[in-house]
Amino acid sequence: MRLLMIGDVVGRPGRTAVQVNLTELKHEHELDMVIANGENAAGGNGISRETAQELFSAGVDVLTMGNHVWNKKEALEYINHEKRIVRPANYPPGTPGNGVNIYETRRKVKVAVINLSGRAFMQAIDCPFRKVDELLKNLSDKAKVIVVDFHAEATSEKIAMGWYLAGRVSAVCGTHTHVQTADERILPGGTAYITDLGMTGPCESVIGAKKEIVIKRFITQIPLKFEVASGLFQFNGVIIEIDEITGEAVSISRIQNYE
Amino acid sequence: MRLLMIGDVVGRPGRTAVQVNLTELKHEHELDMVIANGENAAGGNGISRETAQELFSAGVDVLTMGNHVWNKKEALEYINHEKRIVRPANYPPGTPGNGVNIYETRRKVKVAVINLSGRAFMQAIDCPFRKVDELLKNLSDKAKVIVVDFHAEATSEKIAMGWYLAGRVSAVCGTHTHVQTADERILPGGTAYITDLGMTGPCESVIGAKKEIVIKRFITQIPLKFEVASGLFQFNGVIIEIDEITGEAVSISRIQNYE
Amino acid sequence: MRLLMIGDVVGRPGRTAVQVNLTELKHEHELDMVIANGENAAGGNGISRETAQELFSAGVDVLTMGNHVWNKKEALEYINHEKRIVRPANYPPGTPGNGVNIYETRRKVKVAVINLSGRAFMQAIDCPFRKVDELLKNLSDKAKVIVVDFHAEATSEKIAMGWYLAGRVSAVCGTHTHVQTADERILPGGTAYITDLGMTGPCESVIGAKKEIVIKRFITQIPLKFEVASGLFQFNGVIIEIDEITGEAVSISRIQNYE
Amino acid sequence: MRLLMIGDVVGRPGRTAVQVNLTELKHEHELDMVIANGENAAGGNGISRETAQELFSAGVDVLTMGNHVWNKKEALEYINHEKRIVRPANYPPGTPGNGVNIYETRRKVKVAVINLSGRAFMQAIDCPFRKVDELLKNLSDKAKVIVVDFHAEATSEKIAMGWYLAGRVSAVCGTHTHVQTADERILPGGTAYITDLGMTGPCESVIGAKKEIVIKRFITQIPLKFEVASGLFQFNGVIIEIDEITGEAVSISRIQNYE
Ligand SMILES: [Fe+2]
Ligand SMILES: [Fe+2]
Ligand SMILES: [Fe+2]
Ligand SMILES: [Fe+2]
Ligand SMILES: [Fe+2]
Ligand SMILES: [Fe+2]
Ligand SMILES: [Fe+2]
Ligand SMILES: [Fe+2]
Repeated sequence: MRLLMIGDVVGRPGRTAVQVNLTELKHEHELDMVIANGENAAGGNGISRETAQELFSAGVDVLTMGNHVWNKKEALEYINHEKRIVRPANYPPGTPGNGVNIYETRRKVKVAVINLSGRAFMQAIDCPFRKVDELLKNLSDKAKVIVVDFHAEATSEKIAMGWYLAGRVSAVCGTHTHVQTADERILPGGTAYITDLGMTGPCESVIGAKKEIVIKRFITQIPLKFEVASGLFQFNGVIIEIDEITGEAVSISRIQNYE
Repeated sequence: MRLLMIGDVVGRPGRTAVQVNLTELKHEHELDMVIANGENAAGGNGISRETAQELFSAGVDVLTMGNHVWNKKEALEYINHEKRIVRPANYPPGTPGNGVNIYETRRKVKVAVINLSGRAFMQAIDCPFRKVDELLKNLSDKAKVIVVDFHAEATSEKIAMGWYLAGRVSAVCGTHTHVQTADERILPGGTAYITDLGMTGPCESVIGAKKEIVIKRFITQIPLKFEVASGLFQFNGVIIEIDEITGEAVSISRIQNYE
Repeated sequence: MRLLMIGDVVGRPGRTAVQVNLTELKHEHELDMVIANGENAAGGNGISRETAQELFSAGVDVLTMGNHVWNKKEALEYINHEKRIVRPANYPPGTPGNGVNIYETRRKVKVAVINLSGRAFMQAIDCPFRKVDELLKNLSDKAKVIVVDFHAEATSEKIAMGWYLAGRVSAVCGTHTHVQTADERILPGGTAYITDLGMTGPCESVIGAKKEIVIKRFITQIPLKFEVASGLFQFNGVIIEIDEITGEAVSISRIQNYE
Repeated sequence: MRLLMIGDVVGRPGRTAVQVNLTELKHEHELDMVIANGENAAGGNGISRETAQELFSAGVDVLTMGNHVWNKKEALEYINHEKRIVRPANYPPGTPGNGVNIYETRRKVKVAVINLSGRAFMQAIDCPFRKVDELLKNLSDKAKVIVVDFHAEATSEKIAMGWYLAGRVSAVCGTHTHVQTADERILPGGTAYITDLGMTGPCESVIGAKKEIVIKRFITQIPLKFEVASGLFQFNGVIIEIDEITGEAVSISRIQNYE
């Protein structure tokens, strides 16, 4: 089977990039499932019912989240009713939504999608390593194909997770830095790995935001509000080919499309 | 002219990777200058006279540094006498060594090499944006070709620096995360840019360190000492072609060699 | 002469506490000058013309600031026209407002008030140690009495500043943690020191905010908006007696008043 | 009953301060139990069998720990065999040592001592709020008197914990900042609270370390090694009076002794 994983979708330009690219990619690559990180889909900051809906309509099957998941307050309610969204599983018990869900492709293959968040330079949540152990124990036999979006800042934490899960899941794809890395590979045991999928959003920007504001904020240290940049957009992601019988990944290829 | 910039060289495996790759790369690409980030050259942590010497002997012309620059105490003294090393320029006045130096290639082209360090999730040093303005003012007319190694954690700070210097320097290459990014491009005005050059060191590792130790440290939060991993190595960098008359970059290509 | 320095004034309860306490304190202690940290005066978060005015009317002579100074956007403009406010001096050149001002008491004693911000666990601004050296050089002979509000998180950075300025200024008073420390003393050379003045605001709170919200935020890691707590208030500060001829402090006494 | 809680004991000067002060304090106040934070007892950085022994011999009954607990490697082994030490309970399962122990005073009163560590600006360990809930559930009926050392940086996290445990434990005493706070009080429900007990160690220092080194490190940002300061010492702590029938605290008094 073939999975497309899309890097953080930022604001309207990002949603447009998904719409523009998905039909052709699905067709060309015979994709069985499309997973996109949507933590920046709503105005660059959080998720809303409307923006999620837009992405589902464009052909996204599952949205993963990250540290910005709760920035639009409606998400705290909405996420409970939308099984196509998974938020970082290592938020504490009682957090709205789920950190893992099992989906079925058109060809009846079961795919478990796990979302985890890192802790280095990020929020103080539960240990993602212990949490994923717990999730995998519960998943056994429920799905052969298991895909992890590890939303984290530090490359060391992400690569450590890759090795930790090598041979135990089909794929570990990093998100959050909004820059695609060039280290995609198949780890021993058949785990597709990449440190970061990159960003789907405006090219002429600083990780999606207007560059003039970000530069000014770095220099002045005044808390200026970020705004989603306009202009040309990019589409970032990877296509992973997985042996659905064994759950092992056989290939991972990076995608970078530009308007 | 053609410049090779090499991502963080980690320990003996990294130094060996430089030795093994450099002769052929120099020959094949007719390189005019080789710049390597050496902040992890000595035991994965800092720089020493001996390891620097090894890299110079292997064909490196200039070593740039980063947050680990002072981890081997001898660097505080050694760096004063070694003009082939530049350390982050935005350390405070009075810091040993220089943050910028001008070198001359065999074909008599002057190349200014600047090293800067980021501040997001890093040390509290001087503003890299204001510092580079100051350095560039002093450099005017001394060198047309100006290359910046921006050693930083956050992708936002690195990309912001890229845009800040677009059209003002020949290249802005990020280092520090030890993972090569796939966003190399020529920014408007002829500035080659990449968020991170990647790592030159052991492949089967977490950013150069033994993966078992790093994983254990993340899980236990006990301050275990990192050790440089052994096994196969990788060589990461970029080749930048620069018009030496205008100082504008015309191309940037990523290199990933494996043992 | 006698100076009152008041710890971070939080929201309406804090402003009320100032109004309620100041008349009597001024009278009782024959205060020559009243300096209050006002970074949380407006709704617990920033400063506004209106809330500043309220504090000046209540008898405050000078307002110092901190990391929250720009949270109300009007401050970026207002601060330029209000000489009774000093903001952290180690913001970069070009920042609105001033980091030091010289005031004259009713009895014609000149008092320089400096505001600095720390960097440990805080924003990436200029070095407070080098900045204060620069300010003191410019102040020489303009004022014998020099008072520093060092707004910082880490006790180590604050105490280091105390020792750094011992014998060079009349007082170094820490702010920002909203908890009064019990380490007031006169450092060698006649410098009154305290790590933190504490908070002037609602008692039954977490550093001024509704305790239920803060607890929930720590546990859930969801970005809930803080709200200023209501209920009884406290007034925190110190009275410093300074020899106005030499500029040396002779005593420092903590004040904790409760409604 | 009467408990003495002693703030972070730093190096030899701190251990000496304990020896010098404890006999008289025990006698004068008829202390039933002495608890000291010992995370800096060995050379200012960690705990060793020898330094722990020295403190026990001086009259300390229980040593609590903090973020420096593992800095002397022998602690990883030693702590398993020493029931008089409790380390932060919110380290992950499998960590050497215990996060809570029940002790019996000479007059046969059972006292549970809990050690927790904060997460704001600190290490990524388990949630201290959820962990203490779990511990308290297990403690029910085993001890009426329950004392918590909450080792944390941020005042907000410490005060939040105070309110969270108000009425559920006998005392919540903060440690880690090495500066005694002046906010001791009895929270509703009979919980003695103070944000920080302060430091037992060298007075003329920056939180125990040689001030010249700490200042230089802040200014240069070079990783200089800290050294325990010499000279006069101070003794910091609180005496808490607890109704051993109800477990409610009835008073808390700060102690600051100087050589
Ligand atoms: Fe994102
Ligand atoms: Fe993110
Ligand atoms: Fe490095
Ligand atoms: Fe680095
Ligand atoms: Fe404040
Ligand atoms: Fe503050
Ligand atoms: Fe400590
Ligand atoms: Fe500590």
